[in-house]
Amino acid sequence: MIFDTDHDDFRDMVRSFVATSVAPRVDEFIQAGAIARDVWLSAGKLGLLGLHVPERYGGSDAPDYRFMAVVLEELSRVTVALGSAYSIHADIVAPYLLHLTTDEQRRRWLPGFCSGEMLTAIGMTEPSGGSDLAALRTRAVRDGDGWRLTGSKTFITNGTTADLVVIAARTNPAERSRGITLFGVEAGTPGFTRGRRLDKVGQSEADTAELYLEDAWVPDDNVIGAVDAGFPSMMAWLPQERLSAAVANVAHAAQLLDETIAYVRDRRAFGQSIGSFQHNKFLIADLVTRVEATQAFVDQAVLAHVRGELTAVAAAKVKWWSAQVQNDVLDHCLQLHGGYGYMNEYRVGRAWRDARVTKIWAGSNEIMKEIIGRDLGL
Amino acid sequence: MIFDTDHDDFRDMVRSFVATSVAPRVDEFIQAGAIARDVWLSAGKLGLLGLHVPERYGGSDAPDYRFMAVVLEELSRVTVALGSAYSIHADIVAPYLLHLTTDEQRRRWLPGFCSGEMLTAIGMTEPSGGSDLAALRTRAVRDGDGWRLTGSKTFITNGTTADLVVIAARTNPAERSRGITLFGVEAGTPGFTRGRRLDKVGQSEADTAELYLEDAWVPDDNVIGAVDAGFPSMMAWLPQERLSAAVANVAHAAQLLDETIAYVRDRRAFGQSIGSFQHNKFLIADLVTRVEATQAFVDQAVLAHVRGELTAVAAAKVKWWSAQVQNDVLDHCLQLHGGYGYMNEYRVGRAWRDARVTKIWAGSNEIMKEIIGRDLGL
Amino acid sequence: MIFDTDHDDFRDMVRSFVATSVAPRVDEFIQAGAIARDVWLSAGKLGLLGLHVPERYGGSDAPDYRFMAVVLEELSRVTVALGSAYSIHADIVAPYLLHLTTDEQRRRWLPGFCSGEMLTAIGMTEPSGGSDLAALRTRAVRDGDGWRLTGSKTFITNGTTADLVVIAARTNPAERSRGITLFGVEAGTPGFTRGRRLDKVGQSEADTAELYLEDAWVPDDNVIGAVDAGFPSMMAWLPQERLSAAVANVAHAAQLLDETIAYVRDRRAFGQSIGSFQHNKFLIADLVTRVEATQAFVDQAVLAHVRGELTAVAAAKVKWWSAQVQNDVLDHCLQLHGGYGYMNEYRVGRAWRDARVTKIWAGSNEIMKEIIGRDLGL
Amino acid sequence: MIFDTDHDDFRDMVRSFVATSVAPRVDEFIQAGAIARDVWLSAGKLGLLGLHVPERYGGSDAPDYRFMAVVLEELSRVTVALGSAYSIHADIVAPYLLHLTTDEQRRRWLPGFCSGEMLTAIGMTEPSGGSDLAALRTRAVRDGDGWRLTGSKTFITNGTTADLVVIAARTNPAERSRGITLFGVEAGTPGFTRGRRLDKVGQSEADTAELYLEDAWVPDDNVIGAVDAGFPSMMAWLPQERLSAAVANVAHAAQLLDETIAYVRDRRAFGQSIGSFQHNKFLIADLVTRVEATQAFVDQAVLAHVRGELTAVAAAKVKWWSAQVQNDVLDHCLQLHGGYGYMNEYRVGRAWRDARVTKIWAGSNEIMKEIIGRDLGL
Repeated sequence: MIFDTDHDDFRDMVRSFVATSVAPRVDEFIQAGAIARDVWLSAGKLGLLGLHVPERYGGSDAPDYRFMAVVLEELSRVTVALGSAYSIHADIVAPYLLHLTTDEQRRRWLPGFCSGEMLTAIGMTEPSGGSDLAALRTRAVRDGDGWRLTGSKTFITNGTTADLVVIAARTNPAERSRGITLFGVEAGTPGFTRGRRLDKVGQSEADTAELYLEDAWVPDDNVIGAVDAGFPSMMAWLPQERLSAAVANVAHAAQLLDETIAYVRDRRAFGQSIGSFQHNKFLIADLVTRVEATQAFVDQAVLAHVRGELTAVAAAKVKWWSAQVQNDVLDHCLQLHGGYGYMNEYRVGRAWRDARVTKIWAGSNEIMKEIIGRDLGL
Repeated sequence: MIFDTDHDDFRDMVRSFVATSVAPRVDEFIQAGAIARDVWLSAGKLGLLGLHVPERYGGSDAPDYRFMAVVLEELSRVTVALGSAYSIHADIVAPYLLHLTTDEQRRRWLPGFCSGEMLTAIGMTEPSGGSDLAALRTRAVRDGDGWRLTGSKTFITNGTTADLVVIAARTNPAERSRGITLFGVEAGTPGFTRGRRLDKVGQSEADTAELYLEDAWVPDDNVIGAVDAGFPSMMAWLPQERLSAAVANVAHAAQLLDETIAYVRDRRAFGQSIGSFQHNKFLIADLVTRVEATQAFVDQAVLAHVRGELTAVAAAKVKWWSAQVQNDVLDHCLQLHGGYGYMNEYRVGRAWRDARVTKIWAGSNEIMKEIIGRDLGL
Repeated sequence: MIFDTDHDDFRDMVRSFVATSVAPRVDEFIQAGAIARDVWLSAGKLGLLGLHVPERYGGSDAPDYRFMAVVLEELSRVTVALGSAYSIHADIVAPYLLHLTTDEQRRRWLPGFCSGEMLTAIGMTEPSGGSDLAALRTRAVRDGDGWRLTGSKTFITNGTTADLVVIAARTNPAERSRGITLFGVEAGTPGFTRGRRLDKVGQSEADTAELYLEDAWVPDDNVIGAVDAGFPSMMAWLPQERLSAAVANVAHAAQLLDETIAYVRDRRAFGQSIGSFQHNKFLIADLVTRVEATQAFVDQAVLAHVRGELTAVAAAKVKWWSAQVQNDVLDHCLQLHGGYGYMNEYRVGRAWRDARVTKIWAGSNEIMKEIIGRDLGL
Repeated sequence: MIFDTDHDDFRDMVRSFVATSVAPRVDEFIQAGAIARDVWLSAGKLGLLGLHVPERYGGSDAPDYRFMAVVLEELSRVTVALGSAYSIHADIVAPYLLHLTTDEQRRRWLPGFCSGEMLTAIGMTEPSGGSDLAALRTRAVRDGDGWRLTGSKTFITNGTTADLVVIAARTNPAERSRGITLFGVEAGTPGFTRGRRLDKVGQSEADTAELYLEDAWVPDDNVIGAVDAGFPSMMAWLPQERLSAAVANVAHAAQLLDETIAYVRDRRAFGQSIGSFQHNKFLIADLVTRVEATQAFVDQAVLAHVRGELTAVAAAKVKWWSAQVQNDVLDHCLQLHGGYGYMNEYRVGRAWRDARVTKIWAGSNEIMKEIIGRDLGL
């Protein structure tokens, strides 16, 4: 609907890559608790990692956000965690490295970023803090030509495998949002350690970790953007992060719903296909409508973003709504599978577990409603 | 979003007409149980009644469906019944008179149709039948150069005031859907009578009636389209009717939600505006999102219709979904008004009652889901 | 379940009275906007008005609250407003007149109260106030051997027909809840006038009015309870009021659901009874379960009240929950009637409108949740 | 509420056992994929396994079902799977071994059943069949003084650890429900094998397996009840099984809700406890109400069962409703934990996954509604 033939051609390429090189390996990633690095490198070769990075830094210089949306959709059709791991790196960290950095930093970091040799993560959330970003406690104290960072971060996607983590830390304890600075913390930095992978309700293939900083020294060359100016940057790119979450949410739900429809057409009970029972038929009609309405809503936001007009409030709306619909749809899809829906060998059970966090991460549904309500002057 | 400046200019004109000549008279229409004829005539003068009728028959020859959508939205912002009464005449009956008729019929009927001197209605639903149109029992028996019609129709919008009613009647008792013919039954036809206005849960200003046909003779000149070919025509125009219902549903809900937001900003309890209570704030954030998602969905369908691509299934989806959202939103809006929400002097209570029928009329939500489920092969 | 044979016998008597003398006259009451006084007198003759009043004052001295519950259930099965009008008088005003009054007041007021010659109402809610009772603005100023009352009250059930209204007024402007006194204001008191009956979304037979007090002088003999001590009394009897609301809510929903089941068994479409469509069948199974779960919950609270153990929090729980279920159930019942559900000649449409206020009056669902949440220490 | 002091004393004992010997070992059971046998033996020593078995067979001869309810509640407060594993053995298999067996069988089987040395399971569900029990395909063919059984069973709780499995098999292929017989199939029977433990969405500590029968010979001495008479017996004890499911569902939900309330009282964000945010407060008030209403409904059914009056329809109602409420409540509880809700180290995430199957097993919510709807004559 909202895609041109360029996007369609690009999608064909991405879909083929995902079908050949990603989807068949999900069980392996689940066992390993992370996506294999060679897959990242393959994605890099195809130009998927530096989609919006200029060619001179090794990127693909894609003309608009819809190319990103295509990759997110195709990965999310396989599992939520694939879309998310990719999104953190290629979609969320990218603008920090591209727009806040010095040319020296760009030349140092972006080629590896685009090739997949340097995998990235972003460290905002803290154990004590949750959604209240401005209250973060990780602190950075001036030391020589750099800073010493102390604190901990949690729920960090790509946490144990990332080669570079963008860490938000407090450089001015007297301020709240105006005292936060971003640092590029590299793997191997003394004092920078990672906890074990977090044991989650779903998304076993997602490398989610706690990170610890104990007097970890980071040179000034690794400060990203201006000192004390990190918070507005985080705020500036949240809308795109949330839009990407929405794109992924609806693609995931749509895919599993399609698979469920195929299942209920095929599976029989009491002498007929279970999809032909009126209760199920009406339910699926409801779910299909719900997903399509959500797709239309997200499409509208994608086009707004392409025009440079996506607001934080509009992003909040598509983010929470798509997460809600995704979870509602998957709960019904699981139920429609009967006892098999509860078995991990069926995709739907895993998908149901995987999706549960989308109402929480990247700003919970409650935080989204706070943003929307505030915008209405309430 | 989906409108050009032509539509915007047209909307300004319509909005001004509605604000000046329609909205202030709603109480009068409620007392009368119908919209005053002079308002129809004024709408006719502005060219709103024959929007898609060629100029040679007195119409406005509007370039696309979005002009219709504009009028429906502006009227529905006032009350559901205004949008509905208009839609029956200008939107639903129009294609029958335009596309199935002979040139003689067009010359006879369309000028009055466009001026508002000949108000129309459509008689499909019967007391025994409800949603099962193909089962209709009104029968037409050959008599001389015409037909004698016997039967009754119910829930007929514009029923008592219409000058011409398009009546579906069975001309071939041996067939189901292939034995139905459409007749233009004119006021004053002997044997054609109307019951009292139906006493409804809401929409007191809607002229909704039962119609009775007892051996009412209709000449061949008033047969609309080919004999026995009425059913496919009814099916052909249902998608547009349902799209129009969806356009009206979301416009009505959005308007009342806006008014409710203004109310909760203003009304105070326990020392603060009631909209600032977090429960209310989050609820309204939810409702605003829901309405905007629905608007995006309906917009998408409107554009599909403009391109001539709206399917019966797509229309069914936006129809039931928008009705559901409208009713859910209005129930919360009423609650947010507290005790005043239950008083007819506040618009929200009336709106809540008015909207209740949108999940039922023009194909109930259940029928819509049947259509969607069937399309999925379930 | 929770009733003994004494209650069952009593119910037979009440049901017979309602079937003979009340139900057939609902249309008359709707036209009149109030319940006819002769019906009150008949109820008085049967001893239903002074159920818990000692015999020496003309009452029936019923042994426990379940007799009250029986009357409420039987009246609510006809319409919400009948249960409510009765409840205000016999259930809610009764304890004020019985437990706060002097023996002189009891002798003066209770015989007429029990016979139905003196119909009562209670004036708490004010136009500005809604749920925040402690903020009431009607003031009483000392004047001779009495008080001059000024202010207005709204949403007063039995408002225009009541012979005695218990009015809460502020006697100490320096306090909030500790400065409120109750007054028995009699019809005919100079300065005490009534507005027209309020035009409501439903319950046309309910006599709901605004009351105005302009320097209305009330003698000390009509002060009910101690000066400045009204608020705790109002709080003390709210649990019973809310329990009674719950009893009425579930009885009303259960009755309409029964009628709907009968309807869907009978009504046919597409060649079968509409209740046999699986979607409808499952829906009704859901509604029946919901009503029965709610009945069990309310029954438990009734028994707690009989034991004298009903807390304000427990009453809040059954009150909001039963109102929610009632409204949800009725919305589906209306839908199951199709287009006829929207016609006032069918009971279900009226019932749907009538019930809408139960989520608002006597403490809205939101206020109930506030009470419950506070009790949990949140 | 519904318990006497005898039950309360019994509960104290059970609770102490669970707190000391069961709850601390859940992680061990999760690792092992089954409950350790020594725990079963301890439960046997306390008389919990043969609760309703006469003392002469080693049982406790408990006076009524409420003792069973107590054990189910206390185990379900720890995890769903504990309650379920216990219920299959002590609650569901027990009546088959007690009421259908010969005295010889009772003397052979019941002592080990009561001591925990003979753990049991029941094999009804088949891969092809799901809820349509009468369609089962496992067949038993006459062979000498016994039968040869061939077929497979799935979703069998206690499947790999059970020493005796009650297997339903078709002895008369010409009949549907009237051709099914029950067999006691003992571990070690040649041709009787078990698949690996099923990998489920939750309940890792539950030993759920597929069972295979390939010409497994079972002597006539192990036929339970009369040949061809198995189906009515299965039907006869389903109500108690479903009631027990309901008892467990609400106990589990109530426990996790309590823990969640403690969590939101403690956890802080934006400078206040997260439970004090009005949205959360109202939500929890809603959930508490919902759980209490459900408890009242289940209590009523327990009392009916104690009186011997529980119908299949009443059991269906409490079963599906309690499962629905449990799942709804847990979803909100997880959300209230924010990101931590998605971590397996918090009980709520596991509980949410564990509970998902309660809407499916022992008759899905859809099957329950079918039963209820049929009972209403729909």
